[in-house]
Amino acid sequence: MIKKNENYTNLAKGYLFPEIAKRRREFQAANPDAKIISLGIGNTTEPLTPHIVEAMKNFVEAMGTKEGYEGYQDDSAGMPKLRERISSAIYSGKILPSEVFVSDGAKCDLGRLQAMFGRGVKVAVQDPSYPVYVDGSVMAGAGGKHPVTDHGFDDITYMPCLPENDFFPDLSVVQKDSLIYICSPNNPTGAVASRENLSKLVEFAKANGCIILFDAAYSFFIQDKNLPKSIYEIEGAKDCAIEMQSFSKPAGFTGVRLGWCVVPENLKFEDGSRVCDAWARITNTAFNGASNIAQAGGYAALDETGLAEMNATIRYYLENAALIRSALESDNFKKMGVEVYSGGNAPYVWAKFTGKKSWDVFDEILRQCNVVVTPGAGFGPSGESFIRFSSFGHRENIQEACERLKSFNM
Amino acid sequence: MIKKNENYTNLAKGYLFPEIAKRRREFQAANPDAKIISLGIGNTTEPLTPHIVEAMKNFVEAMGTKEGYEGYQDDSAGMPKLRERISSAIYSGKILPSEVFVSDGAKCDLGRLQAMFGRGVKVAVQDPSYPVYVDGSVMAGAGGKHPVTDHGFDDITYMPCLPENDFFPDLSVVQKDSLIYICSPNNPTGAVASRENLSKLVEFAKANGCIILFDAAYSFFIQDKNLPKSIYEIEGAKDCAIEMQSFSKPAGFTGVRLGWCVVPENLKFEDGSRVCDAWARITNTAFNGASNIAQAGGYAALDETGLAEMNATIRYYLENAALIRSALESDNFKKMGVEVYSGGNAPYVWAKFTGKKSWDVFDEILRQCNVVVTPGAGFGPSGESFIRFSSFGHRENIQEACERLKSFNM
Repeated sequence: MIKKNENYTNLAKGYLFPEIAKRRREFQAANPDAKIISLGIGNTTEPLTPHIVEAMKNFVEAMGTKEGYEGYQDDSAGMPKLRERISSAIYSGKILPSEVFVSDGAKCDLGRLQAMFGRGVKVAVQDPSYPVYVDGSVMAGAGGKHPVTDHGFDDITYMPCLPENDFFPDLSVVQKDSLIYICSPNNPTGAVASRENLSKLVEFAKANGCIILFDAAYSFFIQDKNLPKSIYEIEGAKDCAIEMQSFSKPAGFTGVRLGWCVVPENLKFEDGSRVCDAWARITNTAFNGASNIAQAGGYAALDETGLAEMNATIRYYLENAALIRSALESDNFKKMGVEVYSGGNAPYVWAKFTGKKSWDVFDEILRQCNVVVTPGAGFGPSGESFIRFSSFGHRENIQEACERLKSFNM
Repeated sequence: MIKKNENYTNLAKGYLFPEIAKRRREFQAANPDAKIISLGIGNTTEPLTPHIVEAMKNFVEAMGTKEGYEGYQDDSAGMPKLRERISSAIYSGKILPSEVFVSDGAKCDLGRLQAMFGRGVKVAVQDPSYPVYVDGSVMAGAGGKHPVTDHGFDDITYMPCLPENDFFPDLSVVQKDSLIYICSPNNPTGAVASRENLSKLVEFAKANGCIILFDAAYSFFIQDKNLPKSIYEIEGAKDCAIEMQSFSKPAGFTGVRLGWCVVPENLKFEDGSRVCDAWARITNTAFNGASNIAQAGGYAALDETGLAEMNATIRYYLENAALIRSALESDNFKKMGVEVYSGGNAPYVWAKFTGKKSWDVFDEILRQCNVVVTPGAGFGPSGESFIRFSSFGHRENIQEACERLKSFNM
């Protein structure tokens, strides 16, 4: 019989979000009358905007005609006109269309990137971080084994991001020739790296042969004009960084599926070969392009009307985040000693319940308030005692959840 | 600096279809007036049918409303109602909805399956076969090195499929505990495995600890009611086979992106753990579901109206295939000793140009007829001297290409 891939044996637990969904289902089954509100998974709730809907409807209609029909694209990296528009609208032409690889989303790109870098690469992650960075690395064989003590995987360098360091890591713990995952605005902490942070990061990467995987999936949430939205705003980043981006949150495409990553032509492996060539090989061999309907929507999302509509959606979620922050600053939380972190440039509010375990707080909030949150410990060892509150929800549900939270006690 | 993944270094050449596209572009540049017709890549050309267009338009419109909006699915394996309809419409309920994993297509599923099985697995492929079986295995580390003599990869067992064995392989060359790739109707040969063929295959797999990866992406083309459309028509297949399926060809979804694979609950690794659990882990960690718009289209495609429309599209391409076959049976080809294989249950016509090299024939057909075909050698060592003619094209282009072929000489 065929042996199970040993990398999978190393995975200790199920993926975080299915575990949350399971606990929610069990609670609902035991409490059928409970009206559960989710501030948990980062799932968008607001409708697609009219301009994007129109563009996709028109595209589908054209696909029903001989003239408008499109099959496989010539290149799995996406429609040329979309790659051009991303180059101009997002990067002001500083990134070439040929360096933009359109995909079905950041999570899927991460899986392919991890497969491309393979089992031999050293990995450094912010701690806490999006679980896919670690789980995907382990599945690709780059994680090593999981120790029983729950302090993370042997071969992964965890870079603590805590209030003490303003949630930006001390890079001195990173080994030479590492792949460094940096997410800004950060999931789950909501912190945004400053220009100075990123300049130091790029300098470190170049000096130490590292490649940065910069996850900018939340960049549309940045309102502060002094904060960088892309790693490529930093001089030298094209020599050492891959950037991932997504239409999921700004355009509401979590179900439609569309994103992109930038792999600059300057980026090289040790043997001098271009990373973009290896990337093109895997996108052509293990992927067949994002849905062309989604691409038609993404193309519309990046014109003037589309951008204005996306910004309105972003502001809606940021207003939700402000309401949540305000609820978490009410007296009951103050009495518990809860500290709240939220800078207004991210959809997540991050709160520390000192002395308590994340999963205990999760269970207790679910029990008392019938509100689903995300336990910080699910994002890595340094997430312990924290809770992530997501602002994706209809306003009335956010308001109701905030009301319930105001009587929470633990 | 970061080392290039050694598996990628083993890949000898670029992926087949980009190489064909490159030669086509070069020929067009040198001959700007040539009106090139492609019988090459298996890319669909006929419009989406009205019922599917309507369903996707309605879904997009609903996504623009608060009530109809959908974000992430609860499970990356697809909409419950689509999984149920695949279970009933395709498998008459013999496969459970929970065993159906909806995806963005067979190629993408192959990449994830190869990542899941990992570098330790032994691989056997039909020769010739779809290049992704071999290239993807090599990228996952299961292929070994490519020898200079062009006889394939060290660690892959090639099972010749030739006219002499009716294009179904001799399984005795397969090692114990192998992953066996079988494609029926076959790409590129167009041959369909009989019930007897598949019964022997299942028996062999069960006796030798093998798992079959059964690629049924062309099953809708099967017209002969005696031929099996699914491996699960064979007793015992649920213990030893994964099946991949696709909406690409029957529904014209090559650009829309939708398919599925079946991973039966009975299927186990050596340690007794279920393959479907490992598969759920990778689909949740490295994938986020097919576009929900595509899924709405797939759901419509499998109701009574949708199935009737898909069958009409399939018949159109099969009529094209009959025209191509007829052209290849004309006197000029007979004089060259060309043998033609096409059973009327696949969109590909496979022809042997004895004594000639596939790429030479490819170049010569492009030069004389301005027709792009696919060189058989691109599908593996046993494809040498063969050419694959694809029937995906508008009727008038197929007719024109056939006319031109009738004066081909080499």
